[in-house]
Amino acid sequence: MTTGVRRRMGVEERREQLIAVALELFSHRSPDEVSIDEIAGAAGISRPLVYHYFPGKRSLYEAALRKAAEDLAERFEEPREGPLGARLLRVMGRFFDFVDQHGPGFSALMRGGPAVGSSTTNALIDSVRQAAYEQILAHLGITAPSARLQLVVRSWVSLAESTALLWLDGRRVPRAELELQLVHDFAALAAVSAAYDEEMASVLRRILADEPSDGPFTDLVTRLVGLAPLPGSV
Amino acid sequence: MTTGVRRRMGVEERREQLIAVALELFSHRSPDEVSIDEIAGAAGISRPLVYHYFPGKRSLYEAALRKAAEDLAERFEEPREGPLGARLLRVMGRFFDFVDQHGPGFSALMRGGPAVGSSTTNALIDSVRQAAYEQILAHLGITAPSARLQLVVRSWVSLAESTALLWLDGRRVPRAELELQLVHDFAALAAVSAAYDEEMASVLRRILADEPSDGPFTDLVTRLVGLAPLPGSV
Repeated sequence: MTTGVRRRMGVEERREQLIAVALELFSHRSPDEVSIDEIAGAAGISRPLVYHYFPGKRSLYEAALRKAAEDLAERFEEPREGPLGARLLRVMGRFFDFVDQHGPGFSALMRGGPAVGSSTTNALIDSVRQAAYEQILAHLGITAPSARLQLVVRSWVSLAESTALLWLDGRRVPRAELELQLVHDFAALAAVSAAYDEEMASVLRRILADEPSDGPFTDLVTRLVGLAPLPGSV
Repeated sequence: MTTGVRRRMGVEERREQLIAVALELFSHRSPDEVSIDEIAGAAGISRPLVYHYFPGKRSLYEAALRKAAEDLAERFEEPREGPLGARLLRVMGRFFDFVDQHGPGFSALMRGGPAVGSSTTNALIDSVRQAAYEQILAHLGITAPSARLQLVVRSWVSLAESTALLWLDGRRVPRAELELQLVHDFAALAAVSAAYDEEMASVLRRILADEPSDGPFTDLVTRLVGLAPLPGSV
């Protein structure tokens, strides 16, 4: 008869503990390299008990990923007040915090591969992309975006992903610089698309009108104009 | 004794025929949906004979993908003469030809998933990205790029991928517009990065100096300046 002093956890509590432990391990190494034994050891329980809560490493990995996806999606939430450039910059700061915190796991997941690619993981990745997309649209104050506007926002979300992945590979550019660069990239991609799309152009004019003269967007335009040889009169 | 009139193919010839047939099928539907029976039928041979040349669907899929990857990498090759904007625009035209031709297969591959994600397929995807990256650097005339310049070129390659994937999902924006937009996007991302990086700024000045007044880059700058409220004097 065992009547140890250690309090027995409830089912949900134990599952949450295992998810937290697994997420920590999966964040620092590729899922391929993390064993159930290691997760059991870190949680202070036996290997069979882990299997009692999760039938296999994949189901535990997916549960950890679901938690990470919820966390990441929340980081795109931002009060809808003040200039858009500053809002996006705060969102990018939180996004890079997440990437920083879960670096190796984020890379392994986004680069795909046998241990991580499954319809469940892909659906989770897509759910985060969708949440980011919807947040940006809400900040732009748009409910029925044109095909071109959708493309700009979705391709910018994808650019933020790939920039973060490239940053993780060596971290050779300061992340604060990339956070600001991505805000500038948003303005730049929107400006390119605005050449084809009146909705995009009017969104962009509205954004720029709200920008302070020391905000990231105004900064970008000043720099662009300084670089480019202006074709004739403007 | 069989002495049919049908000429027997050599091993290499038969393998190439199977790869071509499989590539055609994998281009139009997700690999999950294509059976070995169907490949055998389209090649006019028996199912066991397919297995004689390829041990399973995965190995045939990977061989087809290798061929497609070589084809795609070649499309980034472009004579190094004339303005860069026009060169990039021709490359984008060939890239979208490829995407158009292999649409569903390209989507299935790039979106990952159980049937397609493997270390071999990921390595093939990376080899195409690397070839595109090296071609662009060569066009910029750069052999030892800074970290920021690498990031701009690689993130633009990734932007071209994601734009093509988004285009395939409904084709709601004309592809010619997106090809030009991606050339503009390159200039825009380079311009944003040039604010932080002298090498990038000097590359960009050199590109812009070579551009004709009716080229895509000059066009972009004119449009940007037209859109943005200029902050005081420049």
